[in-house]
Amino acid sequence: MTAGMKSTQPNDVLIAGVGITPVGEHWEKHLRELALDAIVAARSDAANLKPQALYVANMLAPSLSKQSQLGALVADFAGLRGVEAITVEAAGASGGVALRQAYLALITGFIDVALVVGVEKVTDRSSAEIEAALSTASDADYEAVHGVTATAQAALLMQRYLHEFDVPENAFAGFSLTAHANAVHNPNAMYRRAIDINAYSKAPMISAPVNMFDAAPIADGAAALMLVRADAMPESIPQPRIRISASSASITAVSIHDRPDPLTLTAVNDSSREAYAIADSKPEDIHLFELHDRFSIFAALSLEAAGFATRGEGWRLAKNDAITRDGDIPICTFGGSKARGDPGGATGVYQLAEVTLQLQGRAGRNQVPNARIGMAQCLGGTGATVATHILERIEGS
Amino acid sequence: MTAGMKSTQPNDVLIAGVGITPVGEHWEKHLRELALDAIVAARSDAANLKPQALYVANMLAPSLSKQSQLGALVADFAGLRGVEAITVEAAGASGGVALRQAYLALITGFIDVALVVGVEKVTDRSSAEIEAALSTASDADYEAVHGVTATAQAALLMQRYLHEFDVPENAFAGFSLTAHANAVHNPNAMYRRAIDINAYSKAPMISAPVNMFDAAPIADGAAALMLVRADAMPESIPQPRIRISASSASITAVSIHDRPDPLTLTAVNDSSREAYAIADSKPEDIHLFELHDRFSIFAALSLEAAGFATRGEGWRLAKNDAITRDGDIPICTFGGSKARGDPGGATGVYQLAEVTLQLQGRAGRNQVPNARIGMAQCLGGTGATVATHILERIEGS
Repeated sequence: MTAGMKSTQPNDVLIAGVGITPVGEHWEKHLRELALDAIVAARSDAANLKPQALYVANMLAPSLSKQSQLGALVADFAGLRGVEAITVEAAGASGGVALRQAYLALITGFIDVALVVGVEKVTDRSSAEIEAALSTASDADYEAVHGVTATAQAALLMQRYLHEFDVPENAFAGFSLTAHANAVHNPNAMYRRAIDINAYSKAPMISAPVNMFDAAPIADGAAALMLVRADAMPESIPQPRIRISASSASITAVSIHDRPDPLTLTAVNDSSREAYAIADSKPEDIHLFELHDRFSIFAALSLEAAGFATRGEGWRLAKNDAITRDGDIPICTFGGSKARGDPGGATGVYQLAEVTLQLQGRAGRNQVPNARIGMAQCLGGTGATVATHILERIEGS
Repeated sequence: MTAGMKSTQPNDVLIAGVGITPVGEHWEKHLRELALDAIVAARSDAANLKPQALYVANMLAPSLSKQSQLGALVADFAGLRGVEAITVEAAGASGGVALRQAYLALITGFIDVALVVGVEKVTDRSSAEIEAALSTASDADYEAVHGVTATAQAALLMQRYLHEFDVPENAFAGFSLTAHANAVHNPNAMYRRAIDINAYSKAPMISAPVNMFDAAPIADGAAALMLVRADAMPESIPQPRIRISASSASITAVSIHDRPDPLTLTAVNDSSREAYAIADSKPEDIHLFELHDRFSIFAALSLEAAGFATRGEGWRLAKNDAITRDGDIPICTFGGSKARGDPGGATGVYQLAEVTLQLQGRAGRNQVPNARIGMAQCLGGTGATVATHILERIEGS
């Protein structure tokens, strides 16, 4: 680990501001209004710096809102006419890969300030339309066409996991209980109620063995991040400096049937390993890990592929409370997709914003004690695209 | 202008290979197969270099093929498991902004080789579905919802142009005649037949004053570009070196009614001006200009906003044959969207590939004599997003 990065380098990319809006059902707001709320909050958090480029993370607008070219639409509505603006899409990994595009643009030195906004508007459509739109993340020709939905895929993976490994009853319950417990004090969370093991074990099956509490709700939401090169960071921004110490993305097969081992998330492994190498760190150095928990099976598989547990042992971290806020590797510290809610392509931006608040000591009652290094990782579909970022608080800031 | 860039700098980004596939109706091919054909051709043209990142330019797959996460899907199908891969979308400007992401990634020095592929599969859907998908490029809440299609928008702009300026009959004919004449010798063009003024003037109206020959056909297609940092360029690639001497993107309002002057393409103006500044050049230095000609009115407006004609005078360049292959500013040298065909979000990649062939002297019977500096520009919707690139042949290569 980079033992105590004491000050910034000119080329460092810092997160200068975050904007998080409540996840939920926002029928009263247009897509662009959701995005604007997050952008205004993030800019306000960053001394109203003006971004020179906007990267929009979105997956569902072309399908559900009949809107493409969101980059221009959102930038113009936010009063940013004349900037450059694009949409970056990699299904559920959109947020992470959008941040990566902003990061790369800043590293070139061509621009000093960039804005990333993740936005999804989902809930005002029929559940059939929503399910079809979500299924575009899988292989349209070989998976979705057969009616294998995201939930069905998670169920197949979880069933296989239960078959392969010696897993006790309710082994995954801890993922859901921790997420719900953490969401209680998150004003932007969709479900702010703790649940107990009794509720989990009696939950109705959605697609066995995935029960209602193993699955996250897809909902509306928007979050934004202001990124600034260290040499352009205004002194007037009071928050501690958060540096992107690693950015990495990788892909593997979209179809589960094309993967040599369906229970190994290869792209999580590749992307995590590269991120550790770039940041010169290892899993033990990470103080919190915002991972992909749209279904609880993915939380277990991510912990394994990212090096926090060996194969078939990820569930133990939930069982022994290692994933709670004062455990060895806190996850879903604001509720995760399970209880904060999952705004599709915007989820990655929520995760990154939450890690930033943690490292800045601004997480309120959700604070992970002494968090200085955090990792955020988002997955597209069943893990075909993976983006991993390691953030670090700069000492003395 | 950079008078005779004699040799490359380590940080230069070069186009090392192009892959162009025929534009047309390809019902027999999957979306991923179209992309693969272009990728294989581009890699073969570039000594089979292995890219470390893939940028997919696509607009319509989520709507028409029910497929998102194309980055991973295409990369995996092309045997590139383990690279990073994303989809970049800005409607008709997708190709240009995807190239820009690859360019920025290479400038950082984190990677040496990147691949850009533009792909669209459109024609195996009903015309109503296609029209609806294309309309996502306009403002869904304020334009598309009222049934104002892309063709209707072009008609409104053209009508306004005819009203504002003193334009003779058939003033726009030259755009269509030139495009069709240039497509005759392009094996990848959809319409390889020249047309005469008689055909143009008798063409049926689609949406007056836009006639059939003022509008380009939306079709299937894929094109790819291999990009390499100059310090990693293999000697074994025999083609002349083509350098990206400027990359620029800009946005303005998506809705025409939100623009102060509907006949000024502000984002074309902003993006072109920035590109000239970066390349230290001016319109007179450009030997060919692959512009946006999905409707002939946009060719006229682009020539004006990019500095090749004053306001209201763009049509004169078509009238006086300045846009033909041996004219002052050749455009649509392989047929343009009008006659090569317009594969939506892939169009920008076709344009860039065509400029590359021209600068390398590989344009065959479509060759623009002595072309050493070329510009490619693509537009999203009615010009809300604009990406401009200036390419330059390096002397002595």
